[in-house]
Amino acid sequence: MSEYKKIIEENESQVRSYCRKYPVVFTGAKNSTIWDEDGNEYIDFLAGCGALNYGHNNGEIKSEVIDYLLKDNITHAMDMYTEAKGKFIETFKKLILDPRELNYKLMFCGSTGTNAVEAALKLCRKNKKRSNIIAFMGAFHGMTLGSLALTTDKTSRDGAGVSLDNVTFIPYENGLGEKFDSLDYFEAILNDDHSGIEKPAAVFIETVQAEGGINVASVEFLKRLEKICHENDILLVADDIQVGCSRTGTFFSFERAGIKPDMVTLSKSIGGYGFPMSLLLIRDDLDIWKPAEHNGTFRGNQIAFVAARKAIEYNVEHDVNGQVVAKGALVKEYVEKEIMPLDEKISLRGIGLIWGIDFGKFEDKDFSHKVADKCFEKGLIIERAGRGDCVLKILPPLTIFEHDLFKGLDIIRDSIEELLGR
Amino acid sequence: MSEYKKIIEENESQVRSYCRKYPVVFTGAKNSTIWDEDGNEYIDFLAGCGALNYGHNNGEIKSEVIDYLLKDNITHAMDMYTEAKGKFIETFKKLILDPRELNYKLMFCGSTGTNAVEAALKLCRKNKKRSNIIAFMGAFHGMTLGSLALTTDKTSRDGAGVSLDNVTFIPYENGLGEKFDSLDYFEAILNDDHSGIEKPAAVFIETVQAEGGINVASVEFLKRLEKICHENDILLVADDIQVGCSRTGTFFSFERAGIKPDMVTLSKSIGGYGFPMSLLLIRDDLDIWKPAEHNGTFRGNQIAFVAARKAIEYNVEHDVNGQVVAKGALVKEYVEKEIMPLDEKISLRGIGLIWGIDFGKFEDKDFSHKVADKCFEKGLIIERAGRGDCVLKILPPLTIFEHDLFKGLDIIRDSIEELLGR
Amino acid sequence: MSEYKKIIEENESQVRSYCRKYPVVFTGAKNSTIWDEDGNEYIDFLAGCGALNYGHNNGEIKSEVIDYLLKDNITHAMDMYTEAKGKFIETFKKLILDPRELNYKLMFCGSTGTNAVEAALKLCRKNKKRSNIIAFMGAFHGMTLGSLALTTDKTSRDGAGVSLDNVTFIPYENGLGEKFDSLDYFEAILNDDHSGIEKPAAVFIETVQAEGGINVASVEFLKRLEKICHENDILLVADDIQVGCSRTGTFFSFERAGIKPDMVTLSKSIGGYGFPMSLLLIRDDLDIWKPAEHNGTFRGNQIAFVAARKAIEYNVEHDVNGQVVAKGALVKEYVEKEIMPLDEKISLRGIGLIWGIDFGKFEDKDFSHKVADKCFEKGLIIERAGRGDCVLKILPPLTIFEHDLFKGLDIIRDSIEELLGR
Amino acid sequence: MSEYKKIIEENESQVRSYCRKYPVVFTGAKNSTIWDEDGNEYIDFLAGCGALNYGHNNGEIKSEVIDYLLKDNITHAMDMYTEAKGKFIETFKKLILDPRELNYKLMFCGSTGTNAVEAALKLCRKNKKRSNIIAFMGAFHGMTLGSLALTTDKTSRDGAGVSLDNVTFIPYENGLGEKFDSLDYFEAILNDDHSGIEKPAAVFIETVQAEGGINVASVEFLKRLEKICHENDILLVADDIQVGCSRTGTFFSFERAGIKPDMVTLSKSIGGYGFPMSLLLIRDDLDIWKPAEHNGTFRGNQIAFVAARKAIEYNVEHDVNGQVVAKGALVKEYVEKEIMPLDEKISLRGIGLIWGIDFGKFEDKDFSHKVADKCFEKGLIIERAGRGDCVLKILPPLTIFEHDLFKGLDIIRDSIEELLGR
Repeated sequence: MSEYKKIIEENESQVRSYCRKYPVVFTGAKNSTIWDEDGNEYIDFLAGCGALNYGHNNGEIKSEVIDYLLKDNITHAMDMYTEAKGKFIETFKKLILDPRELNYKLMFCGSTGTNAVEAALKLCRKNKKRSNIIAFMGAFHGMTLGSLALTTDKTSRDGAGVSLDNVTFIPYENGLGEKFDSLDYFEAILNDDHSGIEKPAAVFIETVQAEGGINVASVEFLKRLEKICHENDILLVADDIQVGCSRTGTFFSFERAGIKPDMVTLSKSIGGYGFPMSLLLIRDDLDIWKPAEHNGTFRGNQIAFVAARKAIEYNVEHDVNGQVVAKGALVKEYVEKEIMPLDEKISLRGIGLIWGIDFGKFEDKDFSHKVADKCFEKGLIIERAGRGDCVLKILPPLTIFEHDLFKGLDIIRDSIEELLGR
Repeated sequence: MSEYKKIIEENESQVRSYCRKYPVVFTGAKNSTIWDEDGNEYIDFLAGCGALNYGHNNGEIKSEVIDYLLKDNITHAMDMYTEAKGKFIETFKKLILDPRELNYKLMFCGSTGTNAVEAALKLCRKNKKRSNIIAFMGAFHGMTLGSLALTTDKTSRDGAGVSLDNVTFIPYENGLGEKFDSLDYFEAILNDDHSGIEKPAAVFIETVQAEGGINVASVEFLKRLEKICHENDILLVADDIQVGCSRTGTFFSFERAGIKPDMVTLSKSIGGYGFPMSLLLIRDDLDIWKPAEHNGTFRGNQIAFVAARKAIEYNVEHDVNGQVVAKGALVKEYVEKEIMPLDEKISLRGIGLIWGIDFGKFEDKDFSHKVADKCFEKGLIIERAGRGDCVLKILPPLTIFEHDLFKGLDIIRDSIEELLGR
Repeated sequence: MSEYKKIIEENESQVRSYCRKYPVVFTGAKNSTIWDEDGNEYIDFLAGCGALNYGHNNGEIKSEVIDYLLKDNITHAMDMYTEAKGKFIETFKKLILDPRELNYKLMFCGSTGTNAVEAALKLCRKNKKRSNIIAFMGAFHGMTLGSLALTTDKTSRDGAGVSLDNVTFIPYENGLGEKFDSLDYFEAILNDDHSGIEKPAAVFIETVQAEGGINVASVEFLKRLEKICHENDILLVADDIQVGCSRTGTFFSFERAGIKPDMVTLSKSIGGYGFPMSLLLIRDDLDIWKPAEHNGTFRGNQIAFVAARKAIEYNVEHDVNGQVVAKGALVKEYVEKEIMPLDEKISLRGIGLIWGIDFGKFEDKDFSHKVADKCFEKGLIIERAGRGDCVLKILPPLTIFEHDLFKGLDIIRDSIEELLGR
Repeated sequence: MSEYKKIIEENESQVRSYCRKYPVVFTGAKNSTIWDEDGNEYIDFLAGCGALNYGHNNGEIKSEVIDYLLKDNITHAMDMYTEAKGKFIETFKKLILDPRELNYKLMFCGSTGTNAVEAALKLCRKNKKRSNIIAFMGAFHGMTLGSLALTTDKTSRDGAGVSLDNVTFIPYENGLGEKFDSLDYFEAILNDDHSGIEKPAAVFIETVQAEGGINVASVEFLKRLEKICHENDILLVADDIQVGCSRTGTFFSFERAGIKPDMVTLSKSIGGYGFPMSLLLIRDDLDIWKPAEHNGTFRGNQIAFVAARKAIEYNVEHDVNGQVVAKGALVKEYVEKEIMPLDEKISLRGIGLIWGIDFGKFEDKDFSHKVADKCFEKGLIIERAGRGDCVLKILPPLTIFEHDLFKGLDIIRDSIEELLGR
């Protein structure tokens, strides 16, 4: 066994997980390719769980980061005024917010996505003086105690060790089949003086549930949800941590629905280069924080600001959204033509460059597991999500070359074929 | 007004705080000196709230980080096996754990300190199947919901918007004056079948309370606390996020007491260069996590591993602990000779390179505020902590040059003198 | 104004409510008739909210109670052994449990219904080591903190002053219209590893929701609910406080479905004479209480035991169940023939001697209020329940004479006619 | 074995407790004497845990109750206006409140003490819009979920099955020995902006802790507690359920301190005859309930009103307070002279007619248990309380004849002597 693998296995906590799925030591990485210490090459359809939308070690961003480091610009400054932060805000406002007529204040949270969710929870409750929050079945919003209460998978919740309160779950669109209308249900419990459900401060939604199994909310669903929230004085928070930053073909995932959430959480790819960063966007009039009422040592990660600014520019200059739409169409076409015909129980869901191949109807409940393992053998890094982890999750860097994309898709097809004995 | 200051003020949330205290735009930084955009120079007695023990832009660390970036080593890898992680663990084990005969597993948490505290809370509760946790009055453990329940300052707690449960606070050593023995109290409530206090899973302690006002627990207190925990099957968790990494003159702050906590949280300066990183050390047999039971996208920050490994080496090679002891003695001597005589109501507490000058006995409850503002005018960045924010907190990089240390101390003395009209 | 009315108004808390609806001073009462201090006579369709199934001042019971008091038998004895308790248990077992092949242990709780619900909650959670409980929208289970968390009306919940946790509400049968299948929903969230709903220790159900608006669960619904509970290792608790004691035509309300709940709460009419008493029936193997783990000073009300024993005998001897079936048919027929034709928006629900006339479809949301007031003017005591309090609730003593029953029904019809201007 | 004992043992839940201590079937009772079915006679030093201050089957009260029943006055009426309620209020106001210049509104709660505590909790939280409540270590306030959170003994709390939140415990006077000043501690945590303790809505206190081991708060303690509450806008609630109704020699237990709590809970002996009844007294301006915001089927127990009115008259006419003072002095003198000399480790605490003989310093932790058992053998019913149940609790009816009082005391002395082998 590799020296480093041994050291890690012997000393890192049992909580480690991805290394169990991909048990090699990774060294180099470029765009959508990763190499292990033996020089083996892997296509990356995981993309740092959405943190690497601009690919591994994006050259344009790297150059700025190294330049910043070389000049001894200030690297750690919490929420002091810095040039790096000023430039990021200026660029984010000019290239992202202003063109979309979005009037948000920016809050830089501790450098993890869950921290932005925790901040949003506090601020919603503070604004509305209510404690209940609505979240959707299938949701994943983070692992710290506040966010965890909004996260639905049993394993994560069982880890809490205390009751997870002040959250009410409702089914996601089509979560209980097409005959169950989740928003009818939501309105019914809001209007029923005997529902037992406390009026919520806010609804938290992922417009595409990633961990929940690649469930894409329809435009109608999102529009109506916003309408219900407005009519009932409830805040709407879009958790765009995984599906924002152009993952779905627009910078914010909710743009396709023409809605304007009251708050938006961003993390993962906002840092541009895989650097930890987290951001809460707040509708102007809701920004009633006291100074430092939510804080953290890493709430300003200056090299992340540098990378994030460059990433925004890169995004616009290279028309990343356009790329996503085009490549997304290729994925859809490929799966429909090459993979779905392999077995009628296979289904597909997705948008932009997030797609799920669902094996949930297979008798072999471990089939998706076998596919992912087989893919890795063949040089593709891909993970699973959703109920029973039955959904193979295609999540490449948005900057992936088409030939690498097809290489990855071929591996998936070949793996399934092999397992089906075709 | 500066262009960037204007952009930030107009667009960043009201929650921003340090920029209100030091209203200039910072650009460059080196070791303990920071420059603003106008070229003004400041001595840094804040040190990123303890995240910059090795100084701003430490050259030895920077060199390794840039080298890593240049080589396109993998930058973001969650908890996969990587060389950068392997090397960090190897070094941490060889230089830190092994010499101290500490047998901890390493858990890499989401890249903020509060995330390590949340992980520790879950793991303690899971191990002991109890929900209650003991924390100390004056404690600060973080701002996400689980950690916040252990954090004591009213402003932070008021932000929660929900009840903060499952935590019982007891006074810190001398927290209620010398005649009140906090550990007698702790034992009394543990042994009383009518105390109403649920038996805790764990006690969380900062061996030196930083935000609480630079309160230094005695060796006797820490030893006895460990003994009580052992006798009652309660876990002891040292939160070394702010006062670990040699801040007190030993790598772990609890070494002076000869105790071995069951878990240790590290963050801030463990990342070496101000890069977000967070680490939970877990006594071997308590590592009962299921894979991914606590997780996060930024739980492996590869450039932080690179910086952290180098920082550990730097720490040992440059005898940072020795430096801290020596410089700490200088601070103590200086304040006792030059500052305390200015007014008999001034008191001093501290250890290593964390010291608090307490103005709490002044009639003017805003005096510490005025001192901090005056210091900034004179070129010193310093903040306040503790009850009523009455304690001026001396927290320079451990690598500060002696002449800069004295320059900073002179500014404090001069500021106080000026305000006292002497 | 009456002397006593004045004294009460001036000195009793604002929380008083029934006296606002029926603002006269009541003195005498017999079976289903009540007299006020001026000698006016009222038919009682409220029956102490179900506490007076055997009528006011039932002579057979009264005679036994007075005899007991005259003999200086022990009146207050908590849970000591007493003859009165022994005789009650003997009779309850012989006449109620044994013929139904029900094998319950009896727990005598503090003398209110909510106390039995609190006991059941504790015991379910203790048995299953889970904290979550499923209750139904529309439910009313009591006003103390544990029970209140299961109670759904907004006014009651708003009074709590703290979060009401550890309960998940699901719609009652037909609660969201016929197309929504509440038990499909229940099974879906139980089987979904991403529902976010913790597996419950128990389901609490009223087989007929009284306060919720006289909603009668079907036999199929109850059978399937029991089946789901059995299959998922979840306890089923029937709250028979209001609809037990023959209210629906069988002693226990769940008999019609042929199910055997794991626990049953009884109160109200179990005391026979309006005396406070409360009882939890526990499936034998679930009786894992430690002595006194739930207790209370009035957990043994000896004169209630005397009255309760006699009431059970009375129930059987006078075939109260048979009476209920017969009189219930009369009510149904009367309302269908005489009242529903008055307006097509009127609907009727009920079983046995609990019926609701629903005016919820009226534009005038206060119509039911006006009907109840008009009824009182005409000499009928009747209250409202359900969503928006739109349901007129017919709940006479089970022993009501037929001519009094018709007198009351006539008043309802006349009141509605008058208000409709017919 | 007795027939009834057998029936009860076989059918009553394991939760039963007093019958385990006194395993005979009780039948008759008069004042402080109880008879079992075999005609054996017992002196009663338990008095229904304080529910029988006027003795068993008090003739004067019984006569009124029977008369009321015979006349078919209304027996169950919830919170309607009734003559029985009007007369009780009139009498309570004239004989109890007015002479003491107490201006309380009366709220009739569900007929158990815990129900009044639950009501008080709601109303305090509603008035102050705060959720935290201060209670004292050693407290017992009831067993329903809200009250249970204020109750301190481990066994009771362990039964909850969920977290008991929103309550902070502080030591009772002398709870941690004389050198620990509990109110200094209370003030310290109130004034400390880093105590972590949320400002409470109210403090709940038993002026004499009964279940906690007969701990008598001093007049100074109570006065200062009231002062702290007033200065900090915190409500003070006296739980007089066990020690009110003249148990301590004044009608309310707090009279000796000259304080006026904002709310007072009464139950147990307020019902006069052991009938379930419960009452919350509310300072006029705090009575902000909405109608029925707290309610319950047995909130008006008419025969309890009749008994309670007569009991108040009896109390005044027979100078029960004077009797208590005189008999209390006899108990104290007897124990000091006849019992304490038996062993220097015996201590005594108490006031009025509630006294505790503490065997906590004995090596044999089961000694008090043995004493109680021996007493029962010799014809005395007495129970234990406090830490480790080490305190023998003398709690006779206030109306006990002196010769019976001495007979009981002699039995205690003889039992101890016998056990000590003297």
